Amino acid sequence: MNGLGMHILLELKDCNPELLNDLDFIRGAMLQTASQVGATIVGESFHRFSPQGVTGILAIAESHISIHTWPEYGYAAADIFSCGSSFESRTAAESLVERLEAKDPEIIEVPRGVIPLAVTPR
Amino acid sequence: MNGLGMHILLELKDCNPELLNDLDFIRGAMLQTASQVGATIVGESFHRFSPQGVTGILAIAESHISIHTWPEYGYAAADIFSCGSSFESRTAAESLVERLEAKDPEIIEVPRGVIPLAVTPR
Repeated sequence: MNGLGMHILLELKDCNPELLNDLDFIRGAMLQTASQVGATIVGESFHRFSPQGVTGILAIAESHISIHTWPEYGYAAADIFSCGSSFESRTAAESLVERLEAKDPEIIEVPRGVIPLAVTPR
Repeated sequence: MNGLGMHILLELKDCNPELLNDLDFIRGAMLQTASQVGATIVGESFHRFSPQGVTGILAIAESHISIHTWPEYGYAAADIFSCGSSFESRTAAESLVERLEAKDPEIIEVPRGVIPLAVTPR
Protein backbone atom coordinates (compact mmCIF):
# COMPACT_ATOMS: atom_id res chain seq x y z
CA MET A 1 0.00 0.00 0.00
CA ASN A 2 1.57 3.26 -1.09
CA GLY A 3 1.12 6.62 0.57
CA LEU A 4 2.07 10.22 -0.08
CA GLY A 5 4.85 9.86 2.45
CA MET A 6 6.82 7.31 4.40
CA HIS A 7 7.31 7.92 8.10
CA ILE A 8 10.04 5.95 9.79
CA LEU A 9 9.99 5.81 13.59
CA LEU A 10 13.38 4.90 14.86
CA GLU A 11 13.82 3.47 18.36
CA LEU A 12 17.52 3.81 19.13
CA LYS A 13 18.18 1.77 22.24
CA ASP A 14 21.51 0.98 23.87
CA CYS A 15 23.33 3.91 22.20
CA ASN A 16 26.59 5.46 23.32
CA PRO A 17 25.23 7.77 26.08
CA GLU A 18 28.02 10.32 25.74
CA LEU A 19 27.18 10.92 22.09
CA LEU A 20 23.52 11.47 23.00
CA ASN A 21 24.36 14.43 25.21
CA ASP A 22 26.68 16.13 22.71
CA LEU A 23 24.71 18.71 20.72
CA ASP A 24 27.50 19.26 18.19
CA PHE A 25 27.81 15.55 17.58
CA ILE A 26 24.05 15.08 17.19
CA ARG A 27 23.81 18.03 14.79
CA GLY A 28 26.71 16.66 12.76
CA ALA A 29 25.17 13.18 12.63
CA MET A 30 21.85 14.61 11.43
CA LEU A 31 23.44 16.87 8.79
CA GLN A 32 25.68 14.07 7.53
CA THR A 33 22.72 11.71 7.32
CA ALA A 34 20.69 14.27 5.37
CA SER A 35 23.62 14.87 3.05
CA GLN A 36 24.22 11.15 2.58
CA VAL A 37 20.69 10.61 1.21
CA GLY A 38 20.62 13.85 -0.79
CA ALA A 39 17.96 15.59 1.32
CA THR A 40 17.65 19.36 0.90
CA ILE A 41 17.79 21.16 4.24
CA VAL A 42 15.48 24.18 4.52
CA GLY A 43 15.61 24.81 8.27
CA GLU A 44 17.07 23.47 11.51
CA SER A 45 16.54 23.70 15.25
CA PHE A 46 18.87 22.15 17.84
CA HIS A 47 18.67 22.47 21.63
CA ARG A 48 20.41 20.98 24.61
CA PHE A 49 18.38 20.59 27.75
CA SER A 50 19.34 20.70 31.40
CA PRO A 51 20.43 18.48 33.07
CA GLN A 52 20.76 16.39 29.90
CA GLY A 53 19.25 15.52 26.55
CA VAL A 54 19.24 17.01 23.07
CA THR A 55 16.47 17.80 20.60
CA GLY A 56 17.34 18.22 16.94
CA ILE A 57 15.04 18.86 14.02
CA LEU A 58 15.88 19.30 10.37
CA ALA A 59 13.16 20.66 8.10
CA ILE A 60 13.96 19.27 4.67
CA ALA A 61 12.31 19.87 1.31
CA GLU A 62 11.27 16.22 1.50
CA SER A 63 9.65 16.70 5.00
CA HIS A 64 11.68 16.28 8.23
CA ILE A 65 14.18 14.39 10.35
CA SER A 66 13.99 14.72 14.14
CA ILE A 67 15.73 13.30 17.17
CA HIS A 68 15.16 13.49 20.92
CA THR A 69 17.72 11.93 23.23
CA TRP A 70 17.65 10.54 26.78
CA PRO A 71 21.35 10.00 27.57
CA GLU A 72 20.45 8.64 31.03
CA TYR A 73 18.76 5.67 29.33
CA GLY A 74 21.13 5.41 26.35
CA TYR A 75 18.00 5.98 24.28
CA ALA A 76 17.06 8.26 21.40
CA ALA A 77 13.78 8.57 19.53
CA ALA A 78 14.23 9.64 15.92
CA ASP A 79 11.82 9.97 13.04
CA ILE A 80 12.35 10.42 9.34
CA PHE A 81 9.45 11.63 7.25
CA SER A 82 9.99 11.59 3.51
CA CYS A 83 7.52 12.41 0.79
CA GLY A 84 7.82 11.15 -2.73
CA SER A 85 10.61 8.79 -3.62
CA SER A 86 13.27 11.47 -3.67
CA PHE A 87 15.39 9.86 -1.01
CA GLU A 88 15.85 6.51 0.62
CA SER A 89 14.52 7.04 4.13
CA ARG A 90 15.62 3.59 5.24
CA THR A 91 19.21 4.44 4.35
CA ALA A 92 18.88 7.56 6.49
CA ALA A 93 17.58 5.42 9.36
CA GLU A 94 20.50 3.02 9.06
CA SER A 95 22.91 5.95 9.00
CA LEU A 96 21.54 7.24 12.33
CA VAL A 97 21.69 3.75 13.87
CA GLU A 98 25.35 3.51 12.95
CA ARG A 99 26.38 7.05 13.91
CA LEU A 100 24.74 6.86 17.36
CA GLU A 101 26.21 3.39 17.90
CA ALA A 102 22.77 1.97 18.70
CA LYS A 103 23.19 -1.70 19.56
CA ASP A 104 19.45 -2.41 19.85
CA PRO A 105 17.64 -0.40 17.17
CA GLU A 106 14.10 -0.82 15.91
CA ILE A 107 12.92 0.64 12.62
CA ILE A 108 9.15 1.05 12.24
CA GLU A 109 7.81 2.08 8.82
CA VAL A 110 4.44 3.83 8.72
CA PRO A 111 3.01 4.80 5.30
CA ARG A 112 1.35 8.23 5.59
CA GLY A 113 -1.39 9.75 3.45
CA VAL A 114 -2.82 6.61 1.95
CA ILE A 115 -5.51 8.35 -0.08
CA PRO A 116 -8.39 6.40 -1.68
CA LEU A 117 -8.00 6.09 -5.45
CA ALA A 118 -11.34 7.90 -5.85
CA VAL A 119 -9.67 11.14 -4.69
CA THR A 120 -7.88 12.81 -7.60
CA PRO A 121 -5.60 15.79 -7.06
CA ARG A 122 -7.12 19.20 -7.74
CA MET B 1 2.70 0.14 28.66
CA ASN B 2 4.40 3.43 29.44
CA GLY B 3 7.23 4.99 27.51
CA LEU B 4 9.53 7.98 27.84
CA GLY B 5 7.44 9.75 25.24
CA MET B 6 4.14 9.58 23.41
CA HIS B 7 4.19 10.03 19.66
CA ILE B 8 0.89 10.85 18.02
CA LEU B 9 0.67 10.42 14.26
CA LEU B 10 -2.19 12.44 12.92
CA GLU B 11 -3.74 11.63 9.55
CA LEU B 12 -5.76 14.70 8.61
CA LYS B 13 -7.89 13.73 5.64
CA ASP B 14 -10.62 15.75 3.96
CA CYS B 15 -9.36 19.08 5.30
CA ASN B 16 -10.18 22.52 3.93
CA PRO B 17 -7.62 22.63 1.07
CA GLU B 18 -7.31 26.41 1.07
CA LEU B 19 -6.19 26.41 4.69
CA LEU B 20 -3.55 23.79 3.90
CA ASN B 21 -1.80 26.08 1.42
CA ASP B 22 -1.78 29.14 3.67
CA LEU B 23 1.53 29.33 5.51
CA ASP B 24 0.36 32.07 7.88
CA PHE B 25 -2.74 30.11 8.78
CA ILE B 26 -0.78 26.89 9.37
CA ARG B 27 1.78 28.69 11.51
CA GLY B 28 -1.00 30.31 13.52
CA ALA B 29 -2.79 26.99 14.01
CA MET B 30 0.41 25.32 15.23
CA LEU B 31 1.34 28.16 17.60
CA GLN B 32 -2.20 28.34 19.00
CA THR B 33 -2.24 24.58 19.51
CA ALA B 34 1.11 24.70 21.33
CA SER B 35 -0.13 27.57 23.48
CA GLN B 36 -3.41 25.79 24.22
CA VAL B 37 -1.61 22.80 25.77
CA GLY B 38 1.06 24.88 27.50
CA ALA B 39 3.97 23.67 25.37
CA THR B 40 7.17 25.74 25.50
CA ILE B 41 8.37 26.68 22.02
CA VAL B 42 12.16 26.68 21.59
CA GLY B 43 12.41 26.86 17.79
CA GLU B 44 10.33 26.94 14.61
CA SER B 45 10.69 26.35 10.90
CA PHE B 46 7.94 27.05 8.34
CA HIS B 47 8.16 26.77 4.56
CA ARG B 48 5.80 27.02 1.63
CA PHE B 49 6.62 24.90 -1.38
CA SER B 50 5.98 25.43 -5.08
CA PRO B 51 3.49 24.81 -6.58
CA GLN B 52 1.77 24.04 -3.26
CA GLY B 53 2.13 22.60 0.21
CA VAL B 54 3.45 23.78 3.54
CA THR B 55 5.88 22.28 6.05
CA GLY B 56 5.81 23.51 9.62
CA ILE B 57 7.84 22.32 12.57
CA LEU B 58 7.84 23.54 16.14
CA ALA B 59 10.66 22.43 18.39
CA ILE B 60 9.21 22.47 21.89
CA ALA B 61 10.83 21.80 25.26
CA GLU B 62 8.56 18.74 25.40
CA SER B 63 9.81 17.47 21.96
CA HIS B 64 8.11 18.55 18.68
CA ILE B 65 5.00 19.21 16.62
CA SER B 66 5.22 18.96 12.83
CA ILE B 67 2.90 19.22 9.86
CA HIS B 68 3.26 18.59 6.14
CA THR B 69 0.36 19.48 3.86
CA TRP B 70 -0.84 18.28 0.46
CA PRO B 71 -3.56 20.81 -0.45
CA GLU B 72 -4.20 18.98 -3.74
CA TYR B 73 -5.44 15.99 -1.75
CA GLY B 74 -6.99 17.93 1.14
CA TYR B 75 -4.54 15.99 3.29
CA ALA B 76 -2.06 16.86 6.00
CA ALA B 77 0.28 14.61 7.98
CA ALA B 78 0.99 15.92 11.46
CA ASP B 79 2.83 14.46 14.39
CA ILE B 80 3.01 15.43 18.02
CA PHE B 81 5.84 14.06 20.11
CA SER B 82 5.63 14.76 23.82
CA CYS B 83 7.88 13.54 26.57
CA GLY B 84 6.86 13.26 30.15
CA SER B 85 3.33 14.10 31.13
CA SER B 86 3.82 17.84 30.87
CA PHE B 87 1.14 18.33 28.25
CA GLU B 88 -1.84 16.53 26.89
CA SER B 89 -0.77 15.51 23.40
CA ARG B 90 -4.22 14.19 22.53
CA THR B 91 -5.71 17.62 23.21
CA ALA B 92 -3.12 19.09 20.83
CA ALA B 93 -4.14 16.53 18.20
CA GLU B 94 -7.81 17.39 18.58
CA SER B 95 -6.97 21.08 18.29
CA LEU B 96 -5.25 20.53 14.94
CA VAL B 97 -8.15 18.39 13.69
CA GLU B 98 -10.55 21.21 14.47
CA ARG B 99 -8.42 24.09 13.18
CA LEU B 100 -7.70 22.40 9.83
CA GLU B 101 -11.36 21.39 9.51
CA ALA B 102 -10.41 17.75 8.98
CA LYS B 103 -13.59 15.77 8.40
CA ASP B 104 -11.87 12.37 8.31
CA PRO B 105 -9.09 12.38 10.90
CA GLU B 106 -7.21 9.44 12.32
CA ILE B 107 -5.18 9.65 15.53
CA ILE B 108 -2.53 6.97 16.02
CA GLU B 109 -0.76 6.81 19.39
CA VAL B 110 2.69 5.23 19.48
CA PRO B 111 4.47 4.97 22.86
CA ARG B 112 8.17 5.72 22.37
CA GLY B 113 11.12 4.66 24.49
CA VAL B 114 9.60 1.73 26.30
CA ILE B 115 12.70 0.83 28.28
CA PRO B 116 13.00 -2.50 30.13
CA LEU B 117 12.68 -2.09 33.89
CA ALA B 118 16.16 -3.59 34.24
CA VAL B 119 17.67 -0.41 32.78
CA THR B 120 18.02 2.24 35.45
CA PRO B 121 18.93 5.82 34.63
CA ARG B 122 22.60 6.72 35.04
